Amino acid sequence: MNSVKDFEAKEVLKYFFEPRSVAIIGVSRHEGKPGYHVLENFVVNKEKGVFKGEIYPVNPKGGEILGLKVYRSVLEIPNEIEHAVIIVPAAIVPKVLEECGKKGVKAVTIISSGFSEIGNVELEEEVKRKAKKYGVRIIGPNGLGVFSPYTGVDTIFLPPFKKNGYGKELLSTPRPQKGYIALISQSGAFGISALDYTAGIGIGISKFVSYGNRIDIDEAPIIKYLGDDPSTRVITIYVEGIRRGREFMEACKEVTLKKPIIVLKAGRTSAGTRAAASHTASLAGSIQIYNAAFKQSGCIAADTLEALFDMAKALVFQPPAKGRNVAILTDGGGFGVISADMCEYLGLNVSTFSGKLQQKFEELKRKGDLPEFAATRNPIDVTGIATSEMYEISAELVLSSDEVDSLVVIALHHPATMHDDVADRIARVAEKYRKPVVAVDVGETDYARYLRRRFEELHIPAYPSPERAVKAVKALTEYGEYLKKRGVLEEYLKRWEPLSSLKRNNISIS
Amino acid sequence: MNSVKDFEAKEVLKYFFEPRSVAIIGVSRHEGKPGYHVLENFVVNKEKGVFKGEIYPVNPKGGEILGLKVYRSVLEIPNEIEHAVIIVPAAIVPKVLEECGKKGVKAVTIISSGFSEIGNVELEEEVKRKAKKYGVRIIGPNGLGVFSPYTGVDTIFLPPFKKNGYGKELLSTPRPQKGYIALISQSGAFGISALDYTAGIGIGISKFVSYGNRIDIDEAPIIKYLGDDPSTRVITIYVEGIRRGREFMEACKEVTLKKPIIVLKAGRTSAGTRAAASHTASLAGSIQIYNAAFKQSGCIAADTLEALFDMAKALVFQPPAKGRNVAILTDGGGFGVISADMCEYLGLNVSTFSGKLQQKFEELKRKGDLPEFAATRNPIDVTGIATSEMYEISAELVLSSDEVDSLVVIALHHPATMHDDVADRIARVAEKYRKPVVAVDVGETDYARYLRRRFEELHIPAYPSPERAVKAVKALTEYGEYLKKRGVLEEYLKRWEPLSSLKRNNISIS
Repeated sequence: MNSVKDFEAKEVLKYFFEPRSVAIIGVSRHEGKPGYHVLENFVVNKEKGVFKGEIYPVNPKGGEILGLKVYRSVLEIPNEIEHAVIIVPAAIVPKVLEECGKKGVKAVTIISSGFSEIGNVELEEEVKRKAKKYGVRIIGPNGLGVFSPYTGVDTIFLPPFKKNGYGKELLSTPRPQKGYIALISQSGAFGISALDYTAGIGIGISKFVSYGNRIDIDEAPIIKYLGDDPSTRVITIYVEGIRRGREFMEACKEVTLKKPIIVLKAGRTSAGTRAAASHTASLAGSIQIYNAAFKQSGCIAADTLEALFDMAKALVFQPPAKGRNVAILTDGGGFGVISADMCEYLGLNVSTFSGKLQQKFEELKRKGDLPEFAATRNPIDVTGIATSEMYEISAELVLSSDEVDSLVVIALHHPATMHDDVADRIARVAEKYRKPVVAVDVGETDYARYLRRRFEELHIPAYPSPERAVKAVKALTEYGEYLKKRGVLEEYLKRWEPLSSLKRNNISIS
Repeated sequence: MNSVKDFEAKEVLKYFFEPRSVAIIGVSRHEGKPGYHVLENFVVNKEKGVFKGEIYPVNPKGGEILGLKVYRSVLEIPNEIEHAVIIVPAAIVPKVLEECGKKGVKAVTIISSGFSEIGNVELEEEVKRKAKKYGVRIIGPNGLGVFSPYTGVDTIFLPPFKKNGYGKELLSTPRPQKGYIALISQSGAFGISALDYTAGIGIGISKFVSYGNRIDIDEAPIIKYLGDDPSTRVITIYVEGIRRGREFMEACKEVTLKKPIIVLKAGRTSAGTRAAASHTASLAGSIQIYNAAFKQSGCIAADTLEALFDMAKALVFQPPAKGRNVAILTDGGGFGVISADMCEYLGLNVSTFSGKLQQKFEELKRKGDLPEFAATRNPIDVTGIATSEMYEISAELVLSSDEVDSLVVIALHHPATMHDDVADRIARVAEKYRKPVVAVDVGETDYARYLRRRFEELHIPAYPSPERAVKAVKALTEYGEYLKKRGVLEEYLKRWEPLSSLKRNNISIS
């Protein structure tokens, strides 16, 4: 594969994600069968007005399913097909693909499994040859394919609901709401779990690709495509091994000038590498080499699924940081200590404020705006008699100072004097300065969950622990440093639009 | 303080936690005042039948509050007082304490703040002198005091509910249900947040102590008391600095032979240490020295609040591991890789199974009990066509083998063939072998949450990520290694009772 083909692949991705017509080849009338559920996804999304293309089910038996005429072959369909989804037994995939080729289909998602992953290497080669012969571009096989809540494309064959042992239907394989994070996953199970995670915590997804054995389209063209996708503000990637390292790095170098890319690379230890070899046949490659490549191309490395989305959320909502100096603002001294530990551990600075800045805090104390015994050297601890006003006034002071590049706001809601307008006040101050602000409230009952949500509605990413918040700040800092190294940070920050202003200016992001 | 006094303190702790009579000194009739809410806690718990002692409100104004006669002084109360809770302005604490001394009260919780933490060192010294003079033992001042869902003692002055900005009452400062984990916290805010966290994730608490400035009772006697407390199976501790290191280590050495202790030490870096000095005036002490002390006395170190309770939950439900060999069983290869990485990172072994064990897996494949292309070298990957039966049969095989000391079960619920009886089947196998088993399902919507809960109802600790599960296994392994070093592992395991058998044998744990 060469860059011309990558360019084509990038172009063809719009057919995968926004087809005017889709053929589902291998539909079934039986609930529980993948070929039923994929068709159902498109039909339901069309009813909802989300999927706007035409849907053509294909099965040699013909007939009608879900109110749609079933064609016996893709060749029988009277109209042009932009995207074909193949869900037939592995052995007949080459034949079906040949028909797609003859039909002139450019984008084919192969969901079917039973290829190289179980040793059927020759069958997979045959599929590759057919694809090449007709210039068909392929996502898959043995993956979940593609999904976007913006366009209603959804080739995930697992239905959203499943019954538990008591016969109760539970949301089992949710599709996340519209969001700003794209996910590319080498592992289908990781991908589906990540969708379950993001749906549950309510952060949403822009586009999802699970390319399975990636016999054709792989990371590089997808990354380039997502780089231009207006609904994607951050790209997240799960990989065990990158196949075309140079192309991957080139794509990342290009795209990271426009938006952040976060990579979770599994198989980082000898035990993990061994497991990866048996899972995706990914070649061993030292994690040091991977990390160097990620760093060089501006990718941020995440170490867990949770961190991947914690960081992504921060980068969706907040601008990159100009430097490593973090201010910590808290109403619980203990979490101030924990945050300071985590900052230093991750290479961020929690420097004692200058005498000049401390003097300003002393003035606030004298005026009675802050408690007499508040700690104000950094961390700032407004103590258990904290109010939202104290948060606002302290945030204003540090964000307006050159000494501070980012702010961690630990707004524990428990003190009687604390109220939820702390979120509004912090968001108001944060909007004035182009410096990243993240929030923390610790707890898993109503008020804590509510306050974190309120922060996020105002585009301040909120975390249930200071450690996770500081990791997010690290990502914002790392991205800022990369942009600075490339000489584009100032320009990037000037161009950077907060989500709120996108909404205010009525810029459509879908 | 000496060990005689520690012995006394340990004895007096039963008055703190199970008083037959309690005086609340400084009650208020005004909602929002700490003196109102502490009284309310006891009154409500008495109505519920949880608190069984007599309640005597004290306020110089007299009258009646919440249906109870208010005494003008503790000296006026006609009966003996086992536990007095002081919630009066700092300046009059010495006077009130003197009265408690004269009354013969042995256990006093001082909630009031305004002592050394804001520079009033002399006032604090005066309190110490009064306490010594009368032999009164003190928890506090400037802490939240004590709480136990078993006995209904609750000196936490923050009411459970609070209104948000829209006037809606939300659960804000919950009291966790009865559980098996004790928590000692040097930071009040950390403590209250930890209660919010444990209540929300439903793991419960046995006893909670927030000792604030710890002018008298500190960690050592509390640890010894909890060591004998039948409702406590695991002790968790948040500290920024240990004051009496020798006594702390002695107490831990004694108690860790009976039950695990997990410590989250904050102030581990220079930034954190500086923050801790300003927060609790804890002396700098290198984290290396702390870690060595923890290790020597059998304490397990946690690095986050989340890890503290992830580990605690595992140690409540599961026995310690005999060695470092972990088996990983998954239906998602990616999470197998991630788990293997995490194991190696934490010093656990994910060794390739012996030829003999692999042979047994091959037999299962031949019989059709496992998928032909399942990976079975470790991790075991039963793939996306996994069934509960495959999990049971694989778990049986590895747990019965000498090659395996613990098992991580990654039971992603998404595949169509997967059902929730996987929890029951795994629990059944786990009960046969005295080896730790932990479970994982990834996702934050209904089915994932439900399946994790089902595992936990069967006493298999369940986690939303493999990394957290592996950290829990690390704690189980570390504790096993410590017991082995002390020469008591075999005996401990013989004596060890799973929660389920405690329940079966009708052993009261309250």
